[in-house]
Amino acid sequence: MSIDDELRRRGERVIPGGMFGHMNAGTLPPGYPQYFERAEGCRLWDVDGNEFIDFMCAYGPMIAGYRNPQVSAAADRQRQIMDIGDGPTRLIVDLAEQLTTQISHADWAIFAKNGNDATTVCNMVARAHTGRRKILVARGAYHGAQPWASRRTKGTPEEDYVHFPRYEFNDIESIRQAAAEVEGDLAGVVVSGFKHDAGFPQALTDPEFARAVRKLCDDTGAALILDDVRAGMRLSLDSSWSLFGVQPDLSAWGKCIANGEPIAAVLGSETYREAAAEVFVTGSFWYQAAPMAAALATLAILRQEDAPRRLDHLGQMFRDGLYEQAQRHGHSLLQTGPPAMPTVMFEDDKGFEVGFRFCSAALREGVYLHPWHNMFLSLAHRESDIGRALEGTDRAFGTL
Amino acid sequence: MSIDDELRRRGERVIPGGMFGHMNAGTLPPGYPQYFERAEGCRLWDVDGNEFIDFMCAYGPMIAGYRNPQVSAAADRQRQIMDIGDGPTRLIVDLAEQLTTQISHADWAIFAKNGNDATTVCNMVARAHTGRRKILVARGAYHGAQPWASRRTKGTPEEDYVHFPRYEFNDIESIRQAAAEVEGDLAGVVVSGFKHDAGFPQALTDPEFARAVRKLCDDTGAALILDDVRAGMRLSLDSSWSLFGVQPDLSAWGKCIANGEPIAAVLGSETYREAAAEVFVTGSFWYQAAPMAAALATLAILRQEDAPRRLDHLGQMFRDGLYEQAQRHGHSLLQTGPPAMPTVMFEDDKGFEVGFRFCSAALREGVYLHPWHNMFLSLAHRESDIGRALEGTDRAFGTL
Repeated sequence: MSIDDELRRRGERVIPGGMFGHMNAGTLPPGYPQYFERAEGCRLWDVDGNEFIDFMCAYGPMIAGYRNPQVSAAADRQRQIMDIGDGPTRLIVDLAEQLTTQISHADWAIFAKNGNDATTVCNMVARAHTGRRKILVARGAYHGAQPWASRRTKGTPEEDYVHFPRYEFNDIESIRQAAAEVEGDLAGVVVSGFKHDAGFPQALTDPEFARAVRKLCDDTGAALILDDVRAGMRLSLDSSWSLFGVQPDLSAWGKCIANGEPIAAVLGSETYREAAAEVFVTGSFWYQAAPMAAALATLAILRQEDAPRRLDHLGQMFRDGLYEQAQRHGHSLLQTGPPAMPTVMFEDDKGFEVGFRFCSAALREGVYLHPWHNMFLSLAHRESDIGRALEGTDRAFGTL
Repeated sequence: MSIDDELRRRGERVIPGGMFGHMNAGTLPPGYPQYFERAEGCRLWDVDGNEFIDFMCAYGPMIAGYRNPQVSAAADRQRQIMDIGDGPTRLIVDLAEQLTTQISHADWAIFAKNGNDATTVCNMVARAHTGRRKILVARGAYHGAQPWASRRTKGTPEEDYVHFPRYEFNDIESIRQAAAEVEGDLAGVVVSGFKHDAGFPQALTDPEFARAVRKLCDDTGAALILDDVRAGMRLSLDSSWSLFGVQPDLSAWGKCIANGEPIAAVLGSETYREAAAEVFVTGSFWYQAAPMAAALATLAILRQEDAPRRLDHLGQMFRDGLYEQAQRHGHSLLQTGPPAMPTVMFEDDKGFEVGFRFCSAALREGVYLHPWHNMFLSLAHRESDIGRALEGTDRAFGTL
């Protein structure tokens, strides 16, 4: 019996269903490890010593490499002085200044732990500012596991969704109609950097849609809330819709802004400052200094290495390679989303049957892919890593 | 201008209201620093170099001393191997086993970041298990800053509270009545380790009340949800109502269980395991290994040093000293809550006027107290620290 199996047996007894949430390996093809031992750069080792080139980056947080020496040094140095206390350190000011300088729409910052803390605070600020209740959310989008933010409704009364009408992402008519139906009560519209619903092909944001949402918010006085928790810093070092010249009023950040140290951020424009000061939001660990030190170090690296351009290049190299291999092996791939956050599926693959076999085979070749969730590139991936990963996927295609 | 003032000026520009949440020094008497520089043992230094014996313990998370060498070593060692990845490490199993062994009612564990994540997950599990909607919450209690969990309603539609009827803590008749009013739809009852509402005198849990709540839940099939985020591990190394022989069905933990490393936990009994497996709850940083290593180290220290007994002793020493000083200086103190989590107010002190002056004076003597929130003792406080703090409070009484 493998060490992973032993741990699963123990885990079954003390963790509901064996594992909770998105890291439950039960949702992955056979052979995927549940438990990991070691992480470095773009590589992971499971508890049985198997080594993988990782294309999930811990589902996003890792962007500058696991155990990045500069980020770790900054966080460790801060931990040797002070992490928590009865108030924050000066780093909270430094980080708020950095983010409001870097992100065009931002005039102020609030820090939290979960990306979902940040998206929820955005809603509260939008409601406090407008005095209205309704927040439009794209059907199928995920803004965290809190009841309002997720499609999964087990344990949540229907009434919790009553103020969150749905619209179709990239569909101007649907969002206009959803807004019209709650006329006079529209507090905000939540959008994502792009359409990255798990289990579906991804879709880049239609710039026309982005501009129409901005106009809708301007016309109605509702807040444009950009959830950049997942896409943030990988498409742009500004907020993701800046690519189309569209600025949100409020934006939510998390995952990779401190390369895996736990921190999330709410950024907002001047108009929403007063409401943000009136809303009471907080948490025991929201003022932790070490993740702020890590964030400052991470943001510096992302700027120095022009992360979005670099990740796009690496992702495109991987995408091109997979395309060529699929052609050669006679498969039709469905590659969607931005190259820096690629989703790889097979055409007409009901239940991800082919995808599961492909990912299992790639895993055996030391390449950790995901069959139904967008993946992530990092600055720790070098061209040689992409090349080596492609050697693995080529052999994986060969087994199909 | 002090460094604190300079940082406040910069902070005003980039943080709404100068600071968000419970660490906004604007709610404290004049002279309290907003920004801190260094932490060690039971001592804090602000950015201007002032040293304090700290009685807030970062509002609870610190229980074994700031930068406790054993806890830091465990967390740092883990960070040098792996903190985040595409799944958890074996530490999640070790920690779930430790907690389910240590906490009588617990058969399983789910980990999160904020205490409020844990209290919210408890509600979801209770609702998923019962198929009902209503959760009774004590009037004035705080279970986190998420809308349902807090008294502060800015930015929250009234409808968000519709499934959270209020009752009076320690009032058996009021909770029976609240339950009767939602008969057939009662999913759970949320209680705290004791009544620790900020801004009010505290109240220990009446054992009769605890037993009546247990019976109410048994009779109705509702979940007894214990929010032990704040009181946990300071009154008992089991869940806090174990002191009266009352076991909850679900309990929420956070703050001090990893001595300040960010982790929260939901613990539950066998009956609720299936519902817990059906509810989808997760977060980007919920599987972090370093805080789990810190939690294992912290829990070992708490057991070795019999933390509740030791903190009770230290707190009683502080309470007795304050009582004697107040008598001698002609003041009537209102000391409430358990000695390990003391609240110190003055009788008939409208607007905390005397309390503010006393706390400001104590601060100048190097003693960091809080005028309207419960305080926290830690294992890093030695009798000599309590003695030194009492010298400071004696001089502070003298200035009133």
